[in-house]
Amino acid sequence: MVKGASLDATFGALSDPTRRAIVEKLTKGDASVGELAEPFDVSLPAISKHLTVLERAGLVERTKEGRTRRCRLVDEPMRDALEWIASYGQFWEGQLDSLERFLTEAKRGRNL
Amino acid sequence: MVKGASLDATFGALSDPTRRAIVEKLTKGDASVGELAEPFDVSLPAISKHLTVLERAGLVERTKEGRTRRCRLVDEPMRDALEWIASYGQFWEGQLDSLERFLTEAKRGRNL
Repeated sequence: MVKGASLDATFGALSDPTRRAIVEKLTKGDASVGELAEPFDVSLPAISKHLTVLERAGLVERTKEGRTRRCRLVDEPMRDALEWIASYGQFWEGQLDSLERFLTEAKRGRNL
Repeated sequence: MVKGASLDATFGALSDPTRRAIVEKLTKGDASVGELAEPFDVSLPAISKHLTVLERAGLVERTKEGRTRRCRLVDEPMRDALEWIASYGQFWEGQLDSLERFLTEAKRGRNL
């Protein structure tokens, strides 16, 4: 997939609150489709549809473990999206500095 | 607008290559609708439609100067989107470090 099309898909995938919540959950570790559906008041097929959108955007990989499908987050598209936004940060006066501070704090808070 | 709805709109707005190109152009300075339409093989009404999407997402502000409409980029929604992605960066092993390096290089390259 060329980068432009990939950014279309990544930003499109992230434009939905359920899909962002799935991404958030997967940052804490791999999960089955059932585990991902749990916090939401939506059906398994609905979650599966969201997962397909995330999968097409390359954000999520689904693998089969016996009868269970495990989902895993893929970091590259998120990093590309982040870099795209950050690369235009030069127009935000001082914003890169505040982002750096934010990152430093995020790392400190998580003991990275 | 609540933050969730705002992120929906921001990511949705950024999921289109023409809209991303408009954002890129506006990072270099304010522009009229005509100036924004110039590099694209699309009609003024089509550009205007894209601008409406960007405006609804809070990314662009249109002001009237005589008979011309000037467009200006608003940084806050982009920063929110960036922070949303970055805040889940803890799951990318070492990615925050590489983003910091990227930001340092971006700042050096632009003499900020």
